[in-house]
Amino acid sequence: MEKKVKLSILCELYGKLLTKKQYEFLNDYYNNDLSLSEIAENNNITRQAVRDNIKKGEKKLFEYEEKLLFMKRMFNQEKTIQKVLSELAKIQKDSSDKKVTSILESIKKELNCLV
Amino acid sequence: MEKKVKLSILCELYGKLLTKKQYEFLNDYYNNDLSLSEIAENNNITRQAVRDNIKKGEKKLFEYEEKLLFMKRMFNQEKTIQKVLSELAKIQKDSSDKKVTSILESIKKELNCLV
Repeated sequence: MEKKVKLSILCELYGKLLTKKQYEFLNDYYNNDLSLSEIAENNNITRQAVRDNIKKGEKKLFEYEEKLLFMKRMFNQEKTIQKVLSELAKIQKDSSDKKVTSILESIKKELNCLV
Repeated sequence: MEKKVKLSILCELYGKLLTKKQYEFLNDYYNNDLSLSEIAENNNITRQAVRDNIKKGEKKLFEYEEKLLFMKRMFNQEKTIQKVLSELAKIQKDSSDKKVTSILESIKKELNCLV
């Protein structure tokens, strides 16, 4: 997975464990697509100070994931649910029973909320 | 939910963010059902020192959950999956199609791995 996507997810999962500044800078950089220079200007600090904060934040996010594995679990879960959804589609394709179709639709909605 | 069950789950989720000692004492107390006195004796320290470590660890676990909400998310997910499983049971009950039954069995296995 691309580093940017990974850090955006990690920031979403563990961002509340970072300092306010680290979270803001990482969020601006990875989710709001601001450049280091733009973040520096907005916060009236040097580009290097922004980079240092981001680097520290990234390091912490990777450490949290190494210990807690929530991103990994989330991906495994999503894989399982996608597999289940494709199995359900097989049943739906072959079924002409309206009751079954309606139950399957409701199940699909429920499962899609989990991914 | 009973405090003991809650702390056992929180310990499982966030235990790796505690100090080694905090984790060991909480795990002994909440998962291995050891008393404070037994843990104190095993570690050659006072009962009060064990209690202090456990209290600190509990506080940290609750703080992590307050910030990250992984236990809450896990419970919501389990609720959804239980609901889906009961919907699937309705289809299975009414179906005599062997192919459908076999797909449903496989889906149930997949989903049960998530709860």
